Parts: sequence; C-alpha cells; structure tokens
Amino acid sequence: MDERPIGVFDSGVGGLTVARALIDLMPNESILYFGDSARGPYGPRRSEEVRLFSTQIAEFLVSEGVKMIVIACNSASSAALDAVRAVSDDVPVLEVVLPAVRAAVKATRNRRIGVIGTALTVSSGAYDAAVAGTKENVSLMSAACPRFVEFVERGETSGEEVVELGREYLAPLQAADVDTLILGCTHYPLLSGVIHFVMGHDVVLISSADETARDAYALLTERGAFREKDGSPEHRFISSGDAALFQALGTRFLGPEIGAVQERLLGGVR
Amino acid sequence: MDERPIGVFDSGVGGLTVARALIDLMPNESILYFGDSARGPYGPRRSEEVRLFSTQIAEFLVSEGVKMIVIACNSASSAALDAVRAVSDDVPVLEVVLPAVRAAVKATRNRRIGVIGTALTVSSGAYDAAVAGTKENVSLMSAACPRFVEFVERGETSGEEVVELGREYLAPLQAADVDTLILGCTHYPLLSGVIHFVMGHDVVLISSADETARDAYALLTERGAFREKDGSPEHRFISSGDAALFQALGTRFLGPEIGAVQERLLGGVR
Repeated sequence: MDERPIGVFDSGVGGLTVARALIDLMPNESILYFGDSARGPYGPRRSEEVRLFSTQIAEFLVSEGVKMIVIACNSASSAALDAVRAVSDDVPVLEVVLPAVRAAVKATRNRRIGVIGTALTVSSGAYDAAVAGTKENVSLMSAACPRFVEFVERGETSGEEVVELGREYLAPLQAADVDTLILGCTHYPLLSGVIHFVMGHDVVLISSADETARDAYALLTERGAFREKDGSPEHRFISSGDAALFQALGTRFLGPEIGAVQERLLGGVR
Repeated sequence: MDERPIGVFDSGVGGLTVARALIDLMPNESILYFGDSARGPYGPRRSEEVRLFSTQIAEFLVSEGVKMIVIACNSASSAALDAVRAVSDDVPVLEVVLPAVRAAVKATRNRRIGVIGTALTVSSGAYDAAVAGTKENVSLMSAACPRFVEFVERGETSGEEVVELGREYLAPLQAADVDTLILGCTHYPLLSGVIHFVMGHDVVLISSADETARDAYALLTERGAFREKDGSPEHRFISSGDAALFQALGTRFLGPEIGAVQERLLGGVR
C-alpha cells in the first residue's frame, strides 16, 4: 500500500486526458497534476527549454512526495524523458510515447503505422526511435498537425472547418496506407471523431492516454503500491498560469459534470 | 444545423461511458440521458422484458424531441434494437454492438476475437450474429463476466481480488489465443486496467463506447445535423431510480470534476 499521489504533468490542460484515464482505471488513487500553462504549449519550444521546464516540474512533484511521475505530454516525453528520470531519484517515470508505440506495433496488420503530433514531437524523432526500439519490422509515417490544438481548445471538434483541416493533415497518411494511427498529442483523443471520419473504419486509432494509464496500472499492481481501498482520493490541480482559465478549459479534458438528476419512472414495472 | 439533443439510454449508469465519449467528440451537443436504474441491470433480465423497457424509454426520448437515439447498453442493443427502431419513427438509432464488432474484425491479426459481457449479452448471440454479418473469416469466443459490474460500481477496479477475478474470467479467452478483445459492457472500460494487465500487451482492447461515439459523429457529420457552434449545450440526466444514487455513482462514469485550481509559477521563465 502506498498513499502518495501519482504526479502528472503537461505543458497545459491536454495531459488531463491522461489524468482522466488514470482516474478511470484507478478511482481510489490521488492525482497531483501540474499544467505549465504559463509556458506552454511546448510544441513550438526548443527542446532545451522543454528539458529545463520538465525537470523543474519533476523536482517540484518529487518534493511534493509523489510515488510516480507520468509525463502526460508528448513534446516533453520526446525531449525530456532522460532528464526527468535523472532528477526523480527512485520515483518511477512513465511517459506517453512508448506505451502508444508498443500498442501500435501490435495492432498493425499491414506493418504501416502513422503518428500525428505537434511540430516538436514529429521533428524530435522520438516516435521513430521508439518504433526502432521495438525491433519490429514496421514503417512509421509522421505528420505534424499544429492547428489541431487550437481547435480542441476552443471546443470546435466538429463542423466543416475541422473536417477540412483533418483531410489536409491526414492525406499523406492515407496515401501511405497506414492501418494504425497513433494520436501523438494528448489533445487529440478529443478529435478522434473527425480523425476516424477522415481515416475510415479500417484504421485503428491508438490513444496514448489510455495506453499510458494501463502501464501505470500494471506498475502499481506489480509493486502492490495502490492506496488503501477505503480512503477517499484527493486530486490537486496546479497551473503555472491562470487558475480560472485552467479550470474552464480543463473541464473539457477531464470530463463533464453531472448536474441535477431528475427522477422519472417509466411503465411502472420494477 | 439541428439543435435537438442526442438521446442516450442504458439500464443504469454504465451508459454514461458512452455519453462521455459523445461529449468528448462533440462538446457542443446536448445529451438527454435516461438511466433505467429502477429496473436495471438488464443483464439478468429476460429478453422480452428488456425489449419492453427499451421501447418505453425510446418512446419517451422521441416524445422529448431527440434527433438520434443511442442504445448505450449491450444487453438492450442485443435484445431490443429492432423493437426500438420500430417505435422511433424517423429518428436514427445507433447501438453499441456493431461499431465494436466492426472495429474488432479490422483490428485482429490472427482472426480470433474475444468478447466479454453480461450473461444476457453473451447468451443473446448478438455478437456472434454481428460477426457473421461482417462476412469476415474470424472466430469469436465469448465469456460472461457477471461480477465485473459490481466491482466497478463499488469502485474496486484494482487490487488482488479483481485481478484474481479477471484471471478466472479471462482464462478461456487466453487459452483461445484471441488477439483482440471487445469490452462488451459499458462498465468495462473502467476495468481496462485489470483486463489489460491480465491479457497482456499483445491483445488489442476495443471499447464500444468510443467506437459508437465515432459512429454518431460520422452520422451527424454526414447529415450536417450538429448544433450551432456557439450555443451552450444542455445535458439532462434522468433516472428511473434514486436521483442521488445515480448522481453519486454516475460521476465515476461520466468523469471526475476539477475542484479548485492552484496557481504556481516554476523557474520564473515565461
């Protein structure tokens, strides 16, 4: 048993899709989330900056007593994993690239995988390196989709404009005949409607949020490091930027809220 | 443009995983959710009862002016799809079996698919029929996991007991060497940690909630039937059972809530 929270960080609110996947699978675990909204998004940043910011956050999370760190940001996973591990002492560090790649190489049938992400994620070559590391004979095709994030953040995940943008960004991946596509940015699960619509039923979408949460679950199971069953979890959300903005935007990523529930009996049969 | 809400129903709170997937992909859409908690779960019910209850709910949703009905319950999808369509006039009806089956037959590499669900879902043969309907040369192995629902509903999704139960339920599917597993009950996405832990990295998990939401997205895109972009969506949750219980339990399925957000600047770099 280990009562400490799981530390999760991202350049902003996007990593909340990972936090939510963790909470879904482990509803008794406490989450300490840090969103670096003041300095995010990391996508357009230089990798030295992303390494600096990521190690600062990791040191903060370690000082707050987390039992695990999840880098819930593809850009930071790509640029800063080793640096974060170096400052995290014996706290295990998970990230979002490898879990998704491992799932994708298993899911592909024609051995052609695609990945979409920010400019930094794509140019970092982190996905190429991770695919090479699996020793599987698959080819990887990458495409940067820089404007997707802004559409998600303003809640515009349907309609002609985003579908048109999706067609444009995804055309090279369709031309490359990928049958499996990694959503290589934590914002993109919220765009899986348009991505699925454009790519069609034959393409399997891999969410790094879900895959990473499953890895975290396995790690805590192997170590017997879950919290006691009966204690209520305590989630903390910390932003380097404006708290009100984080809360407003973050709700879309973490999940909607159930308001008042009406009671209504139908048919009278129990 | 079509301002009407999307109707979603289930025998209780489980279908909220589908509602959430819909809200994730289409944050501007309004949801009218009916949970038949007073008469659920449907899993142990006779199929005639499930058909009666489902048509009552569909008639209610149509009378409330929904633009689409999503049967967010595997038992009801299995037992009552035709009956629901018969009472829904020209309102399109989606369900959760076919989208998951279609994704699974695409994802399998060794042509061996598994499905887990309630006793009614498994005994109904709905998944066998749906697989046969794809005309794909795949074999389907089913396993009923009746006790999974109670574990999810009391929030016990980790720990030795549920892992042991998972091992027991999933052993026949492992022996059958399935490489793709359909989570054939709306509660099960919340157990994908334990299911993934037991089945291992080589098995692709298919969530009917995600697949169904993508189908709903495609349908509304093709019909140009989304709401206006700028109107705030209004979600309504109706239960035939106790509203307070629905709300307490439902929050786990629909998503956690962001409480107060703290602001904190690290490193002073912007």
